[in-house]
Amino acid sequence: MAKQSMIKGASKPIPEPVLRRLPVYYQYLRKLNLESPREYISCAKIAEDLNNLAIQVRKDMEFTGAQGRPKVGYRVTELLKAIEIFLGWDNTTEAYLVGAGNLGFALLGYQGFKDYGLNIIAAFDSSADKIGREVYGKKILPVKKLPDMIRRTGIKIGILTAPASCAQELADAMLGAGIKAIWNFAPVKISVPAGIIVQHENLASSLAVLSKRLALLLAER
Amino acid sequence: MAKQSMIKGASKPIPEPVLRRLPVYYQYLRKLNLESPREYISCAKIAEDLNNLAIQVRKDMEFTGAQGRPKVGYRVTELLKAIEIFLGWDNTTEAYLVGAGNLGFALLGYQGFKDYGLNIIAAFDSSADKIGREVYGKKILPVKKLPDMIRRTGIKIGILTAPASCAQELADAMLGAGIKAIWNFAPVKISVPAGIIVQHENLASSLAVLSKRLALLLAER
Repeated sequence: MAKQSMIKGASKPIPEPVLRRLPVYYQYLRKLNLESPREYISCAKIAEDLNNLAIQVRKDMEFTGAQGRPKVGYRVTELLKAIEIFLGWDNTTEAYLVGAGNLGFALLGYQGFKDYGLNIIAAFDSSADKIGREVYGKKILPVKKLPDMIRRTGIKIGILTAPASCAQELADAMLGAGIKAIWNFAPVKISVPAGIIVQHENLASSLAVLSKRLALLLAER
Repeated sequence: MAKQSMIKGASKPIPEPVLRRLPVYYQYLRKLNLESPREYISCAKIAEDLNNLAIQVRKDMEFTGAQGRPKVGYRVTELLKAIEIFLGWDNTTEAYLVGAGNLGFALLGYQGFKDYGLNIIAAFDSSADKIGREVYGKKILPVKKLPDMIRRTGIKIGILTAPASCAQELADAMLGAGIKAIWNFAPVKISVPAGIIVQHENLASSLAVLSKRLALLLAER
């Protein structure tokens, strides 16, 4: 629940919906490149394939600085590069994952992150039967080493996949050691001081939207 | 990427952001009930604790039909009940999960779904070493039985946690057998006919927002 939906600090504020759509264009263009490569693509074509409006695609692309040509559109490789640079995906950011349960394992194994410039370099857990294991090439380390490792490596992103009951405590430990952004998958809201970024993935919120839409759809019949 | 952000069909259209906030209020009120129970709560208090605006909380609650009292606010138990009924969480909806990898396991084990009226009754996979196993009390069945099971049970929600490469094929199989809503966790966009609900959980989009905010935060210093 982002109260503030404009991402400020850049020359031009970037609305959050634009940031959410750019990766969708990116995934679409990469898939197109693999399946039916073409040199140029128009906003109208992207819009049609993604069930979107051409004018919105054009406005979104303007943020990245990509230059289209009249009649032909964008060069696909240039557009991909522009989105990559705009989203910072050309530079890899390193992150730690805290809580090596099933969801933690799933994120450790998620192949997509590499393409999006995110590299999870290790996971932390408190359970003795997990510590020392390697999952998808990432080591699981004891959680008591977490603050030290954050300080030593200067890593700024923490991915929190711990149970609700210890989420706040782990968040506090991360922030105390220098983490600046927490991607929170724990099913609980965490409190952080001003100036810290938290992004909460709330499955309950998504489910609420899905089930309300389904209820309305079924009621219409 | 919901092009249409108003959920229509009800007497009053419900904006998607409202639907996304209601579960957050619900989780907050439940936690409050456990940790420091109180009979009444005001919008101002909720707003303060959740870093929101009181007027927004009040408007959101209006959708549920909950009745507050001047000066004291809402009775907590009534407010919880009103949100539950509004979101349909008082009736359990059954769902199938397709793709019993790590993410599938994580969702099968997610305790929260029960509170939100979602019951995953079985999982499907094609891998011989998974079929027949039980995960968190849910059976893993062979994916070739999926269409038959959907027809027999009349289940309307499918949770797709399969790899990108077979996501579309599995979605088609589900829809052909009568599924009306797909909660798509596969890292690829799927195509569905009109009248079918798809909710795509796109980790890349969330990551884009998080990393852009972090980049701006670090640049400010």
